[in-house]
Amino acid sequence: MGEKDRSDEALRGQGELTYAASDAIAAARAATSDRYERAALLADLCRLNTLYMIMQAGSGHIGSSFSSMDLITWLWTEELVDPNSGAARADTYFSSKGHDAPALYSLLIALGKLDFDLMHRLRRLGGLPGHPDVAVPFIATNTGSLGMGISKAYGILQGRRRTGKRGRVVLMTGDGELQEGQIWESLQPVANEQLGDIVAIVDHNKYQSDSTVAAVSDLGLIEDKFRAFGWEVKRVDGHDFRAIGDAFAQFARVVNKPKVLVADTIKGKGVSFMEGIACGDGTYRFHAGAPSLDDYFAAVRELTGRINAKLAALHQPPLTFTAAPQPVRVAPSKPERLVVAYGDELLDIARTRPDIVVLDADLLSDCGIEAFKEELPYRFIECGIAEQHMVSAAGGMALAGLLPIAHSFACFLSTRANEQIYNNATEGTKIIYTATLAGLVPAGPGHSHQSVRDISAIGSVPGLVAIEPCCEREARFAIRWAIEEHTRSTYLRFVNVPMDLPYTLPTWYTLSVGRGVTLREGHDIALVGYGPLLTSNAWLAADQLALEGISAAVVNLPWLNRIDEDWIWHTFSRVGAVLTLDNHYVTLGQGAMVAAALARAGVRADVRSLGLTDVPACGSNAEVLAHHGLDVAGIVRASHELVRLTPHVP
Amino acid sequence: MGEKDRSDEALRGQGELTYAASDAIAAARAATSDRYERAALLADLCRLNTLYMIMQAGSGHIGSSFSSMDLITWLWTEELVDPNSGAARADTYFSSKGHDAPALYSLLIALGKLDFDLMHRLRRLGGLPGHPDVAVPFIATNTGSLGMGISKAYGILQGRRRTGKRGRVVLMTGDGELQEGQIWESLQPVANEQLGDIVAIVDHNKYQSDSTVAAVSDLGLIEDKFRAFGWEVKRVDGHDFRAIGDAFAQFARVVNKPKVLVADTIKGKGVSFMEGIACGDGTYRFHAGAPSLDDYFAAVRELTGRINAKLAALHQPPLTFTAAPQPVRVAPSKPERLVVAYGDELLDIARTRPDIVVLDADLLSDCGIEAFKEELPYRFIECGIAEQHMVSAAGGMALAGLLPIAHSFACFLSTRANEQIYNNATEGTKIIYTATLAGLVPAGPGHSHQSVRDISAIGSVPGLVAIEPCCEREARFAIRWAIEEHTRSTYLRFVNVPMDLPYTLPTWYTLSVGRGVTLREGHDIALVGYGPLLTSNAWLAADQLALEGISAAVVNLPWLNRIDEDWIWHTFSRVGAVLTLDNHYVTLGQGAMVAAALARAGVRADVRSLGLTDVPACGSNAEVLAHHGLDVAGIVRASHELVRLTPHVP
Repeated sequence: MGEKDRSDEALRGQGELTYAASDAIAAARAATSDRYERAALLADLCRLNTLYMIMQAGSGHIGSSFSSMDLITWLWTEELVDPNSGAARADTYFSSKGHDAPALYSLLIALGKLDFDLMHRLRRLGGLPGHPDVAVPFIATNTGSLGMGISKAYGILQGRRRTGKRGRVVLMTGDGELQEGQIWESLQPVANEQLGDIVAIVDHNKYQSDSTVAAVSDLGLIEDKFRAFGWEVKRVDGHDFRAIGDAFAQFARVVNKPKVLVADTIKGKGVSFMEGIACGDGTYRFHAGAPSLDDYFAAVRELTGRINAKLAALHQPPLTFTAAPQPVRVAPSKPERLVVAYGDELLDIARTRPDIVVLDADLLSDCGIEAFKEELPYRFIECGIAEQHMVSAAGGMALAGLLPIAHSFACFLSTRANEQIYNNATEGTKIIYTATLAGLVPAGPGHSHQSVRDISAIGSVPGLVAIEPCCEREARFAIRWAIEEHTRSTYLRFVNVPMDLPYTLPTWYTLSVGRGVTLREGHDIALVGYGPLLTSNAWLAADQLALEGISAAVVNLPWLNRIDEDWIWHTFSRVGAVLTLDNHYVTLGQGAMVAAALARAGVRADVRSLGLTDVPACGSNAEVLAHHGLDVAGIVRASHELVRLTPHVP
Repeated sequence: MGEKDRSDEALRGQGELTYAASDAIAAARAATSDRYERAALLADLCRLNTLYMIMQAGSGHIGSSFSSMDLITWLWTEELVDPNSGAARADTYFSSKGHDAPALYSLLIALGKLDFDLMHRLRRLGGLPGHPDVAVPFIATNTGSLGMGISKAYGILQGRRRTGKRGRVVLMTGDGELQEGQIWESLQPVANEQLGDIVAIVDHNKYQSDSTVAAVSDLGLIEDKFRAFGWEVKRVDGHDFRAIGDAFAQFARVVNKPKVLVADTIKGKGVSFMEGIACGDGTYRFHAGAPSLDDYFAAVRELTGRINAKLAALHQPPLTFTAAPQPVRVAPSKPERLVVAYGDELLDIARTRPDIVVLDADLLSDCGIEAFKEELPYRFIECGIAEQHMVSAAGGMALAGLLPIAHSFACFLSTRANEQIYNNATEGTKIIYTATLAGLVPAGPGHSHQSVRDISAIGSVPGLVAIEPCCEREARFAIRWAIEEHTRSTYLRFVNVPMDLPYTLPTWYTLSVGRGVTLREGHDIALVGYGPLLTSNAWLAADQLALEGISAAVVNLPWLNRIDEDWIWHTFSRVGAVLTLDNHYVTLGQGAMVAAALARAGVRADVRSLGLTDVPACGSNAEVLAHHGLDVAGIVRASHELVRLTPHVP
């Protein structure tokens, strides 16, 4: 599930990006009447276009897109009855794993079901979101968090039964996705209801995130498992179009049982050096990020070469591909990487603390704990995509006297394992939950990954203190405080995007529960928040306000659910206005707590709160911050409105 | 998982309660050297004492306690190595299902491992909590919410591996509990790690809550499932001590695989008319509440008769049992039952709204939807104990054009399915989540069931409006508003405890988003909150304050995550102080939002917030409200402190 920004090195190369335009696609599809050859050609064209989209976006899941490409090409061209066809039985398809959205988009574009211009708009505001969203035509349900697909299919079919409609629901799961408990929770009800119109396909590419499924959390006997839950099971080569077609034909003869097609696929299939099989037990390099330019051009050569070789064998002329300029991106110059600093400090402490064990839910590199695993493998436990199990296992380890530190993305850890975190808290043990990829950015993956309600989701867990550091130094303080000072559990919230920071913490600064630090003095308005994203924007907004003669303080308050009212009084009683900034929904974020603390402390400043108010948009980071009014301009605008209420005291 | 208060009718009967004191237990255990006969005698004595404890407490799970009684009696007397024995290999036992805590308590008391006086203190403050808690000796982990046990066992064993300890972890699951996805999420990791020291016992009593497992959500091939996940499986009669003993002996010979014992048991085993098998497919009456006095005395006659008949067959004198007076309880005189009113109004609306479908997670009667199921069975979907699946299925149904209404206890619905609720919200569909058993009371089941962080957990879900009605009339308004007026999703939060209410809503009152209603005018202080529990206590506190010359307003604000700042200004700008009242943690409850809104609206009143600040206590409702300062006296006390700050303006 990892999300990486395309590295700036990748942008230094030469050359243009390549895609197949509509006419090239039409020519290829007309080149043969053999439906297997036609599907193979189309799948390779879509691979080329998928790569183009990911290069344009700067990120996206290649491996997962390529492994499912042949399957979905067959489905959409030969198997599914289009829901817009008006047929009595129309089919619905969706990807439960969601990561292969670029593959599906490129296919839907190639089939004319999506506007061709959207090819250039992956992960852009108003374009194609990083994970599937029902706002896009032919996307049946929102996915991106794993394991919900079969339940959704059950609901869709139960709905159809009650509204007189017919047709199948075909959905794609990952193999790593089968580690999620909800998959197994959903299997038996589907079988009990005899929903024979559900067909699940397991894209069994043997890799998840950066490693093999077997190395992360082996799946055991997949086919036996589905059969034990009452499903009809077939297993095929997921790159053999004839075998896929035959399996669906056989499924059609089984009426009262849900079906699962376990499709053996190859992650990254179609570009030799991107194929998972090539890296053995090593790290798979093409899970989530855009490739380097060298890799990209090599992949384009291989794909275009194969496409034209196939056409030549069919006595057809080669295709003409279309070129587009590379997008220009400005990389930060000396970015702070909070998660890296965290992981480094954690490892340093762990060397002298044998009670520390690290748990991970298949997001090793995004959580900064690769070095920990390398150096202390016996104290590292990979749980796979099984957040509930991981958190309860951490609970058991804490009961046994260890100090467990559980890792995942904030969006999954705070929600999927929400009750398990609470259950652990009621035992009074000490556990650290490290939640990365927090907040609105990176905004490319979309709302499934933008964790903007985790403060609310875990903020009332008894004894659990939540902290978000604003820089590498505070990140080191935070993990050290959680291990060495706090007696109960801690939730550490991290922004993953590396960024240049315009501020530094005072040299004397140390963490003190509920108390923040004034980074910059000011008397007209105080901008108060947490984390690198909005503290940076607040600082830059204060620069702009200063030019207008408005004196704005910038206050960093890393405590997300603990606020010291004495500190509040001391810090804000002589300022005219307070603007709280949440990289989170405003309803129950830090800003609400700060505003409440201002009221309880008797501070009479004018107060306003900025933050999210609805589902976060998908797009480039700059687009999305502006869209939600959380960019520098948005903070300046809100400050103007607030200061206008307040008589200016020079 | 249902929790019912013992009905007041049950209290009108005659006679005293009966239990076996220490000497009677000792006499019975000494009566035979046959370990199977001895275990059977002890199990029946513990059944008698379990019933006594449940009668004293007024609630508790008889059926689940009795079905597992024989199994745990065998384990604790013949199989487990006591963790306090100092042996090189010591075993840990816990109940993952947790509902059978009274059985385990009565056994631990009988074995002298718990203080005998605790017999009289089930579900009382400082006594034995309704569900297992590590504060009690020999309770290894906190349970009460389902499905976490195997993960906890995994963690405990991984912890032991790393701290040089050995021994088994034996845990008991329910059969309905197998519907929870986390069970299946946890099985494969345990098998992959070859944790042969984990033994799970499935108390396969064929009933869950009020109905058969088969009727709710059939389990399919239990043994095949566990085998497919790599577990060693045995199946026995869970009331045959010899078979249980043999199975454990066989398990001891399998080293590198986790084991599961599927134990066929009878819910309510040991009292003929309480046995599940006796009610066929009908409603099982002894899941969660205390029995009627008639049933109780009949059960005592049967148990004592059998115990003494067994002793007679062993040529032993009959036992002398101990009598204790029945507890005195005052029932409300004209209680309002909000959930019943809700269910009635929902059914009324549904008769003319064919798009409404009702989903349930095995809490039918506690959610007020029995009549709905009876009258509109085709629009009722029982999902079993599978909250994640239920919520995603509701999402699918909404996508298919229906209006799904999903039901469970607040503690499970808001947390177990937290990410699924969010995922649905991002699709912009309309779903109603009805969450019952909200808040601090009933306080007997303990913290797993006391939902005091759900406002926080779901309050930031985009578009989701949360409401808690304060009376039957407002309950009817709320469901009607959610169905007929609100365009997005709604979370309806209900207190289940029937209570007399000292206030009524004004006749002109209707719901208006974010705006409350002043039930009683006052100018020194305003008490603002929601729901029947604290609004009642606020009213009674205002009565007391009035006697002291303090004029207290009582304001009902049913909106839990929407607050209209104009209304805030209008309502509170002329009051000296505001005390917010949360039947929830104070950190991110309604009180924090009200305080924040007061600050943003520029209201200058002194503000303080009452609510939970740590894990809720277990006990009688009155004990626990007083313990947390949320009873009438606590509100008066807090009002005094707050008004003292404020100059009294007559």
